[in-house]
Amino acid sequence: MTNGVESNNMLRFYNGKVITMNGGTEAVENEVWTDGAKICYVGPKRDDMPHFKREIDLHGDVIMPGFKNAHTHSAMTFLRSFADDLPLARWLNEKVFPMEDKLTPDDVYIFTKLAILEYISSGITSSFDMYFHLDAYAAANIDCGFKTVICGALTRYDKRREDIEDHYLKYNALHPLIKYALGFHAEYTNDLDGLNYIAELSRKYSASVYSHNSETKSEVDECIARHNMTPTELFDSIGLFEHGGGGFHCTYMSDNDISIFARKGLWAVTNPASNLKLASGIAPVQKLLNAGVNMAIGTDGPASNNALDMFREMYLVTALQKYAENDAAACDADTVLKMATSGGAYAMGLSDCDIIAEGKQADMVVINMSRPNMQPVHDIAGNLVYSGSKENVRMTLVAGRILYENGNFYVGEDIEKIYEKANTALKKLLER
Amino acid sequence: MTNGVESNNMLRFYNGKVITMNGGTEAVENEVWTDGAKICYVGPKRDDMPHFKREIDLHGDVIMPGFKNAHTHSAMTFLRSFADDLPLARWLNEKVFPMEDKLTPDDVYIFTKLAILEYISSGITSSFDMYFHLDAYAAANIDCGFKTVICGALTRYDKRREDIEDHYLKYNALHPLIKYALGFHAEYTNDLDGLNYIAELSRKYSASVYSHNSETKSEVDECIARHNMTPTELFDSIGLFEHGGGGFHCTYMSDNDISIFARKGLWAVTNPASNLKLASGIAPVQKLLNAGVNMAIGTDGPASNNALDMFREMYLVTALQKYAENDAAACDADTVLKMATSGGAYAMGLSDCDIIAEGKQADMVVINMSRPNMQPVHDIAGNLVYSGSKENVRMTLVAGRILYENGNFYVGEDIEKIYEKANTALKKLLER
Repeated sequence: MTNGVESNNMLRFYNGKVITMNGGTEAVENEVWTDGAKICYVGPKRDDMPHFKREIDLHGDVIMPGFKNAHTHSAMTFLRSFADDLPLARWLNEKVFPMEDKLTPDDVYIFTKLAILEYISSGITSSFDMYFHLDAYAAANIDCGFKTVICGALTRYDKRREDIEDHYLKYNALHPLIKYALGFHAEYTNDLDGLNYIAELSRKYSASVYSHNSETKSEVDECIARHNMTPTELFDSIGLFEHGGGGFHCTYMSDNDISIFARKGLWAVTNPASNLKLASGIAPVQKLLNAGVNMAIGTDGPASNNALDMFREMYLVTALQKYAENDAAACDADTVLKMATSGGAYAMGLSDCDIIAEGKQADMVVINMSRPNMQPVHDIAGNLVYSGSKENVRMTLVAGRILYENGNFYVGEDIEKIYEKANTALKKLLER
Repeated sequence: MTNGVESNNMLRFYNGKVITMNGGTEAVENEVWTDGAKICYVGPKRDDMPHFKREIDLHGDVIMPGFKNAHTHSAMTFLRSFADDLPLARWLNEKVFPMEDKLTPDDVYIFTKLAILEYISSGITSSFDMYFHLDAYAAANIDCGFKTVICGALTRYDKRREDIEDHYLKYNALHPLIKYALGFHAEYTNDLDGLNYIAELSRKYSASVYSHNSETKSEVDECIARHNMTPTELFDSIGLFEHGGGGFHCTYMSDNDISIFARKGLWAVTNPASNLKLASGIAPVQKLLNAGVNMAIGTDGPASNNALDMFREMYLVTALQKYAENDAAACDADTVLKMATSGGAYAMGLSDCDIIAEGKQADMVVINMSRPNMQPVHDIAGNLVYSGSKENVRMTLVAGRILYENGNFYVGEDIEKIYEKANTALKKLLER
């Protein structure tokens, strides 16, 4: 930090409580200072105060690490409420795929911006995203000041599988807000050649690999019929997990799958709202946790959720485990809060966005405690997980920049303009 | 209405869309005028405009009937996040009951006010509440301007069962915002004498009867062991349903139970968040709907939910049915929206709070469409149910009075005072 030295980029958060997520979830009365993109001080009020660009009185509110949305397809906002209440096969084949075929890069740009607005209104500071038209997708994030890790999405229908390597090199060098992780769409959309290619890249770059994994029972059954192995066993046998990584959904996991995830230190990203809405099932989160598997939480895309709301996801993660395990003690609030913050950061390879500490990225959210759902204050972590909602997000900062404050968005473009462009793009899409 | 006549109590809502909930869920470009507690006009702009106290430009937002919270224990806000992640028996016996024993009327008053703040922040305009210290409870509602139906809660531990009749007469005559419905706590907390007494009152006053019903599997099993009948069969055999009514939770319903509910026109009030969190189960909502059973939605008390958030409940109602029925087409958005609004009104006997129409009570909510989770606009009902959240509540009116607007509360007392009093009362409770 710039001790005592004047700086135009320093923010001071005072008169509130800090949940650092470094270890437990206690809220401690401390100050947080940022300098540019980073946190430069966490501790009590000091005598040697530098010059701050802005001093923010928290009025007793809580500052904590931002939520990490560890699996999504942001640009799918255009399909929100477009085809609800349909069986999965009809939903995909009659509604989603025909519309996606018509998407232009400009469409992806504007629909991604719409998703980013919702992320920051929910205290989400980064996303782990799988989609296409990646230049447009990256531009939307950079233009808004939002942070994202793009996940490769190889399928057997891709014209040029070497794009994955090109993208890996290009997007990891593009901008501080953008990263790229190796990945493929899923077992059922790839042949062994494709999977072997990704494994080869993983070895070449010592890079972790992600994909959709065991989202539905039929996906697992069909993989076993084809390969006599579950998706997890197949991926492991090919060497896809030699440098870490993990899977999205992980709804149907055998004991052996769970053991592979635990042994290899892989990340299981759960997507409870999507799994319910598409009637996929309930992931064995408590079993995964018991086995020591690393866990993070994602919203999945807005076509299958339909919200991008980490509070709803956190509630579902714990409430569904209590139901599925028939045990009201399952999956406690502290565990869920960790999954939604530091867990997501590690899963996405953002190890400097995990906790509030000096030198870490200033990806933070201020929780408004003056809303009735946060009162009384027995247990802040419990309040956040069991009764928290978007209304509690007072401020969202990404890399030290305030993107959202008191209901207002600071993403470089007027939100009404973004809505108008999104609705216009959608109208054209429907006419094409 | 006061056609052309000046009035100091008229509000005009214009430049938006109205979902009347009269039949479907379409949003129509119309105006809504209120006069005092009632809606006095719904239709296009007119030439003969009266003098309005205030004209509210909706800026394209949606006005619709308020949500009805058809089962709750409002004052239990004091137990929010007090004892999460505990098995049901320990939660009740070690945490809930000992604390409830110490509650004073003043405690119930302030903790109820805290719940009302959360209701109106979620667009809820009335509650169907079961608790004790009823004078204090009623006063909190009246003082805030909130509407409630108190449900009788007879148990075999009550000193004087005739209180139920006294309360029925007293609270139905007390204030326009207060009603009282006959009820008892549950089968397992009553003996047959008590149930027969309630049935007698039901006949005497031609009054409907409500209770907790089949919330858990063990409750049903134990009732069958005691009476060789399910709770629903027992209640029906005693004549408790001769004048309508229904049950809260209805998680474990046999085919015969469902048939009794359908034949008698009873209301099943589902409480999905509470049922998950306490590991009770998933109610057979789609089966109940298929059988033609009337349905409404409740949050249950904040000790077992822990939020009082109708958006979360609506999402859970449909998402859990899609999961449980293994059918993504189950329980569509229109059906859920009806349950949460007009369904709740009928269940609570508030037949003049069901829809937006001339002469109906002005219990309404304005939905902010300028939030990213409401865009794009394919289907407003879908957006409300699948991605709606408290952030979308721009305004809540009860009986024509604006209690909540743009995040601010108008309940006759400063919210920070309410929080302070609630936390002080809680501290004293913990010390007693």
